[in-house]
Amino acid sequence: MSQKGILVVISGFSGAGKGTLMRALLEKYDNYSLSISATTRQPRAGEVDGREYFFVSQEHFKSMVESDALIEYAQYVNHYYGTPRDYVEKQLSQGRDVILEIEIQGALKVKKKFPDALLLFVMPPSAEELKRRLVNRGTESLEVIQARLKRAAEEAVGIEAYDYIIINDVIDTCAEELHQLIQAQHNKTSNRLEFINGIRIGLNQL
Amino acid sequence: MSQKGILVVISGFSGAGKGTLMRALLEKYDNYSLSISATTRQPRAGEVDGREYFFVSQEHFKSMVESDALIEYAQYVNHYYGTPRDYVEKQLSQGRDVILEIEIQGALKVKKKFPDALLLFVMPPSAEELKRRLVNRGTESLEVIQARLKRAAEEAVGIEAYDYIIINDVIDTCAEELHQLIQAQHNKTSNRLEFINGIRIGLNQL
Repeated sequence: MSQKGILVVISGFSGAGKGTLMRALLEKYDNYSLSISATTRQPRAGEVDGREYFFVSQEHFKSMVESDALIEYAQYVNHYYGTPRDYVEKQLSQGRDVILEIEIQGALKVKKKFPDALLLFVMPPSAEELKRRLVNRGTESLEVIQARLKRAAEEAVGIEAYDYIIINDVIDTCAEELHQLIQAQHNKTSNRLEFINGIRIGLNQL
Repeated sequence: MSQKGILVVISGFSGAGKGTLMRALLEKYDNYSLSISATTRQPRAGEVDGREYFFVSQEHFKSMVESDALIEYAQYVNHYYGTPRDYVEKQLSQGRDVILEIEIQGALKVKKKFPDALLLFVMPPSAEELKRRLVNRGTESLEVIQARLKRAAEEAVGIEAYDYIIINDVIDTCAEELHQLIQAQHNKTSNRLEFINGIRIGLNQL
């Protein structure tokens, strides 16, 4: 059955374990393509062009915007981030499920252009657990952590626009649930119109 | 986490294996309650009042309609069929997922009253397989089977209103997929508002 891929948008609080969850999903199942964003910010230590991001100049980014080469883009702290259209559309048309890991503003823009996109929001089991995870990382000062938690509370304002909440408690269980949820979307009626039509034609020919 | 149950409406072509699928689901998992319809038709051999149907008089059925005791009702071949409201609402409020096995007209009425209801349509893998199953039952003449297939083709007209298509190929696999699909609905954002609010409050109290 040839079918288009599902466009999956994943957002979530920083510290909710989104990154780990994505890695678990991509390692376990091979039907996903992870979209790589273009950004005007400088690469950090260890980041590779074309792996974490496509690192582009302000000028190049501007030309991508003008030629409608980005599905969505947004600005954070003086830098631009955007989702290249080409890759996403090509993977979808080949039947691969494409994952965009983007922030809420971008997610809402994607939903407008791709109404069938599946919007998922990853949350920790509790606020205390979120703080615990951020503290345990040991990479940030308590001040930065407090700022992140404050931002999480603000982010929570847009969550109602998402289709499903993914509660990330045990990572492997969560990755499996996530996989099943995404795969179930292939059976959405709007994604099965061709199949339904085939049955209709078949019934009339019997 | 106390949460309301999911209202699941299941329809499908006769011969698609809906009945067998329901039995497999209810045997395998214990979180489902099957709604029993009220009907004015006479019980057939082997049917038990309160198991297959609640068998009621025309008069009693009319009084149920007038007192809004039915979520939906419809007429087929001079008989009335309806879904008692009490049972459904009680089970849902206790957190149990309730399954209504009803026809498309009823399904659409339920969706109007319960917008969060999950509408599923069970289909065979192909038109030929549907015919094969009906013939293999051996309980009906070829004429009746042709009439059923013709009706299936007509029923297929309303399918677009359903949320998901359930393709019933291997019964056990299908029951498991069905179970996972229903359970995933507990994580729909609209069903997790209480949880989201709890996290918000928690974040502000940290």
